[in-house]
Amino acid sequence: MSRVAYVTGHYVPHREAAVHIEDRGFQFADGVYEVIAVKGGHLIDAERHLARLHRSLGELRLTSPMADAALRVVLGEVIRRNAVDTGIVYLQITRGTAPRDHAFPKAATPTLVVTSRRARPSDPRVARDGVAVVTIPDIRWQRCDIKSVSLIANVLGKQAARESGAFEAWQVDSDGRITEGTSTNAWIITRDGEVVTHAADHAILNGVTRLALLDVVRREGCRLVERRFTVDEAKAAREAFLTSTTADLLPVVSIDGAPIGNGRPGLLTERLRAAYLAHIAAE
Amino acid sequence: MSRVAYVTGHYVPHREAAVHIEDRGFQFADGVYEVIAVKGGHLIDAERHLARLHRSLGELRLTSPMADAALRVVLGEVIRRNAVDTGIVYLQITRGTAPRDHAFPKAATPTLVVTSRRARPSDPRVARDGVAVVTIPDIRWQRCDIKSVSLIANVLGKQAARESGAFEAWQVDSDGRITEGTSTNAWIITRDGEVVTHAADHAILNGVTRLALLDVVRREGCRLVERRFTVDEAKAAREAFLTSTTADLLPVVSIDGAPIGNGRPGLLTERLRAAYLAHIAAE
Repeated sequence: MSRVAYVTGHYVPHREAAVHIEDRGFQFADGVYEVIAVKGGHLIDAERHLARLHRSLGELRLTSPMADAALRVVLGEVIRRNAVDTGIVYLQITRGTAPRDHAFPKAATPTLVVTSRRARPSDPRVARDGVAVVTIPDIRWQRCDIKSVSLIANVLGKQAARESGAFEAWQVDSDGRITEGTSTNAWIITRDGEVVTHAADHAILNGVTRLALLDVVRREGCRLVERRFTVDEAKAAREAFLTSTTADLLPVVSIDGAPIGNGRPGLLTERLRAAYLAHIAAE
Repeated sequence: MSRVAYVTGHYVPHREAAVHIEDRGFQFADGVYEVIAVKGGHLIDAERHLARLHRSLGELRLTSPMADAALRVVLGEVIRRNAVDTGIVYLQITRGTAPRDHAFPKAATPTLVVTSRRARPSDPRVARDGVAVVTIPDIRWQRCDIKSVSLIANVLGKQAARESGAFEAWQVDSDGRITEGTSTNAWIITRDGEVVTHAADHAILNGVTRLALLDVVRREGCRLVERRFTVDEAKAAREAFLTSTTADLLPVVSIDGAPIGNGRPGLLTERLRAAYLAHIAAE
């Protein structure tokens, strides 16, 4: 079966799916996106993804090309046409095609692209053994709360992680505080048992998995603090983990080569992971 | 005559010119570009543009899709096919099309897009009367020396300028220093007669017109200092101006509504502009 994509009103073979060279997404990174998990053919945490999409659109003064109900129909149709049971659906909205000029075009129709693909089955060893992260300077722009396609710094950071043999790079601001990973949120559990993650300000993308996990942490009766934490604090933590739509929750067992705790996934991390997966299953 | 664009090996009608929806330029802003002025059908300052292109490519570890000689042939052909005498040629290189993943794809062919268009005849009143600028916070990433298509902050800044009735927005770093405009470099002439512009570090794009003007300023025997300057210093300056490939050199006559000097283009600015236009004519 060949893949199908949706591009601004048309379902087209994926290999032929294209946007104009003067699409502002291509020339200016003038667009936003969402990646939504699909399980059993259904969207996971769709409300939160759509709420964040509208927030991103609003911050960039982009117009949604259609109402949410219609968008959900398109998402569902792309999932169905690609026969995705477990995987992701990707949607991207840009300001549309217009003669190149930095300022907003007077009249342009927003571009909407939707694709879906099955997830490669995740290797159970990754969750069992945990992952390594490295730290890098956070050189991104100052509005990381907007889920824009302006991702070149994230690309360079992820590549640096891969070349270090790490799963992810945690980005460190000019005060020595960890903001987040290049495509994941960063969490630690202190020796006092506090679950800590960066507050949702302009420095991080407020992940949907992050939001879902905040609920899980509260329900589990853990102490939760949303605040910045330093690299040293992270290295001295009892446990650490990361979250994202595609990674779910993964234990972090080393930072810059230094083991976290005993270098094995932490007990509370495993409990939170199980509770998070139960939330997904219930959705 | 209908416009023609070049897209990775093919000359195609501009209206049909497209890139794949999984082009990394579209999904990750993972690409670089150049805008080169064309006068009399010839490229202006081509050597400097190509040198900067290679620097940008190198910093992002992108591969040029062809040798410079071949690239010059393509640029020339796109200019010829569009019958551009006076205008610009735009080229963009991205890391190519690959299944979406932040890290570099193992195998992807770089995308090369080239377009050319005639310049709208510039309104002589703009140079005669000068332009207004406003100041805005510089929220861009920390590698503005790379001419990447990660331009969303520049887009928002230019739009803010337009909505303020200004030609350009000068971006101000966290120390209160002006870095540059959203698509132009910023210059002031102090009351002591020093010509001042931000040094070419990671905070600014080292404009080709900037480089050409540095030569002009030296040749004209002016005192030149490459250093940061504050908004207050700019507002108290005797003269101010901005430079870019498409704007050439334009006098700045007000900043945030406050007149610079007597609110008219400065004498030294006009002398430098004439000398710069002579350089272009000689190219």
